Amino acid sequence: MAGIERIRSVASRVKREAEAGNEVLVVVSAMAGETDRLVQLCREAAALHDRQEYDVVVASGEQVTAGLLAMTLQNMGVKARSFMGWQLLRATGVHGNARVEAVEGALLGEALSGGTVAVIPGFQGVSEDGRVATLGRGGSDTSAVAIAAGIKADRCDIYTDVDGVYTTDPRIVPRARKLTKITFEEMLELAGVGAKVLNVRSVGLAMREKMPLRVLSAFEDLPGTKIVPDLGDDMERNAIAGIAADRNEARITLTGIADAPGTVAAVMGPLAKAGIQVDMIVHAATPDAGASDLTFTVPRASLSQAVRAIESSGAKGDGAILTDAAVAKVSIVGVGIRSNPELAATMFATLAERGINLLAVSASEIKVSVLVAEEQMELAVRVLHTAFGLDAPRENDV
Amino acid sequence: MAGIERIRSVASRVKREAEAGNEVLVVVSAMAGETDRLVQLCREAAALHDRQEYDVVVASGEQVTAGLLAMTLQNMGVKARSFMGWQLLRATGVHGNARVEAVEGALLGEALSGGTVAVIPGFQGVSEDGRVATLGRGGSDTSAVAIAAGIKADRCDIYTDVDGVYTTDPRIVPRARKLTKITFEEMLELAGVGAKVLNVRSVGLAMREKMPLRVLSAFEDLPGTKIVPDLGDDMERNAIAGIAADRNEARITLTGIADAPGTVAAVMGPLAKAGIQVDMIVHAATPDAGASDLTFTVPRASLSQAVRAIESSGAKGDGAILTDAAVAKVSIVGVGIRSNPELAATMFATLAERGINLLAVSASEIKVSVLVAEEQMELAVRVLHTAFGLDAPRENDV
Repeated sequence: MAGIERIRSVASRVKREAEAGNEVLVVVSAMAGETDRLVQLCREAAALHDRQEYDVVVASGEQVTAGLLAMTLQNMGVKARSFMGWQLLRATGVHGNARVEAVEGALLGEALSGGTVAVIPGFQGVSEDGRVATLGRGGSDTSAVAIAAGIKADRCDIYTDVDGVYTTDPRIVPRARKLTKITFEEMLELAGVGAKVLNVRSVGLAMREKMPLRVLSAFEDLPGTKIVPDLGDDMERNAIAGIAADRNEARITLTGIADAPGTVAAVMGPLAKAGIQVDMIVHAATPDAGASDLTFTVPRASLSQAVRAIESSGAKGDGAILTDAAVAKVSIVGVGIRSNPELAATMFATLAERGINLLAVSASEIKVSVLVAEEQMELAVRVLHTAFGLDAPRENDV
Repeated sequence: MAGIERIRSVASRVKREAEAGNEVLVVVSAMAGETDRLVQLCREAAALHDRQEYDVVVASGEQVTAGLLAMTLQNMGVKARSFMGWQLLRATGVHGNARVEAVEGALLGEALSGGTVAVIPGFQGVSEDGRVATLGRGGSDTSAVAIAAGIKADRCDIYTDVDGVYTTDPRIVPRARKLTKITFEEMLELAGVGAKVLNVRSVGLAMREKMPLRVLSAFEDLPGTKIVPDLGDDMERNAIAGIAADRNEARITLTGIADAPGTVAAVMGPLAKAGIQVDMIVHAATPDAGASDLTFTVPRASLSQAVRAIESSGAKGDGAILTDAAVAKVSIVGVGIRSNPELAATMFATLAERGINLLAVSASEIKVSVLVAEEQMELAVRVLHTAFGLDAPRENDV
């Protein structure tokens, strides 16, 4: 069974850490497919279900893994025991989306200092009313970070489906390279634009708590990627950490918008009210023209809803609403962008050389994003990957 | 999905009880196949596993059902919530085979008296060291009875795979009839000899606690069987509750056993030491013969082990050891036997009429058992079923 083999593989890593003299606490997620199965059972039982009962059902997935990992470790000669969320973790907030409030350190500390590996089901704790509370999907990563912070661990290793963070999607650029190190900020920007390795909440929490992370493969014994507060004096790493690509974009352009205070707000208000997240916003008034264009992007699935929201609000005025769903966002991400304006210039020049038209541009402290036609997305990623020196050597060694 | 449909079917029964003005507490077992799946995962993880970790894994099955049933009830408009074993039930004894020690009545009472249906995972509680403890296989029935006694319920209904207790195995006698009422003692004797409806521990506990039970189908809405302390003035029911048959028997006869004190004990001692349960024992010394035969039965799977144990003990003396694995035990069970010696006589006469030879006979307060050749077992059951007036009318109505 794939599940048990994966548990054994994690157990042998844990054993190595324990035998190296470390105090080890392991936070586990449910076995592959298990959470989906439990969520499906809840849906079948009741389309609209009580979050508290949902938590009781779904939390069982991690509980099973915790018991299995503890017995596997014992079987390998490692002292180990499981703890349940209700024995250790106080959670607050709504059921199904709770946050870790406090970690019962005494019970844990006793086990750890006695050389026992503690195994804890992720994604859950006990609520103020004494019931099981889950932390929302992806919550195992987040609870691992919260527990690591709570017991002041030296670092938090996260074993996952991938073996680290890559410079870009290897399906687009086969010579994508695994990063040995990345900052929290870069990781958040890469995650936000499509590099789905870690839950965004867990990275944000680790950044706040200054808890160094490592992303490692749960399947293979390979060096992973360290996620750290800053790169320090590390001059080895490229100024650009990676190139992100996101097809989940649609562009809306409103023409003939009045050049008056409040017109942008008049458009964004109804969209916010409809719960639609607006991403890139480009609006520069042409001097003395009296009217201009407003371009922005929304998630592709929300495009028609967004158009309806604008139309019914009457905010568009006399101009037209132009839409384009065949667009994609390509971004360069790196802490070097902050201090080096040349990097953005290099990006634009590289894309121009290959005839790639920029439909919109936006920039933050450590990221520059351009909107391009979707059919040009992969080309844009490849040429930027090469231009910023990210391609792996031919042997693809790390 | 079969599991969810079964949960809905139980939920509608619970709803009816709640709407009739009853305070209802439901103890649930795991969904079909779920406990086996979890036990198998434990075996794969570690052949010899820690009972405490086993409990963590296996207890999750009932937890899932509890959450699903609570949300299904809510969806049907019934106020309901689940409680976990660790919130309510203190258990003592070894992990994996614990007993219910106390029920946290206050929390429960509050919910019940407020009109909320309480749903509780069976088979588990919290141990003295604050960990999850399971009660052993079949423990859902037992914890239901323990909780019912703990909260002084009026009765405990057990929904199961069968729709009640039958006068005999319907595969042998198609006209077997569902009993409307049976005593605890009769139920224990029927269960002990092969009518596997309820866990023996749960019946024994209900008898001690004088907690009336009902066995009902979890699938169909049919009247079940009441299990009660005594039949009272109920003259309607037959003196014999049912006929049990058990193929799991093998006969051993030792010939030429010395007629001296201690010879039977010399044979039984080594068997007990080997953990072999001896059932029917027939030994009557022939006056003045100086030697006689000793016949007894053992579980069929233990036959060769039993023979080895006797041989190596040297207890058999000079006689032979004769064995026969093709035997079966047929019993009549009923509280009427206690006061009416005619019933045993009727049994022997009925079997004699059909030429069925009795290889051994044993009797207790409310049961008479005979050992017959296995090939005659079904015939014996059928003729006794008819002779004691247990056959259902042709329409098989109840």
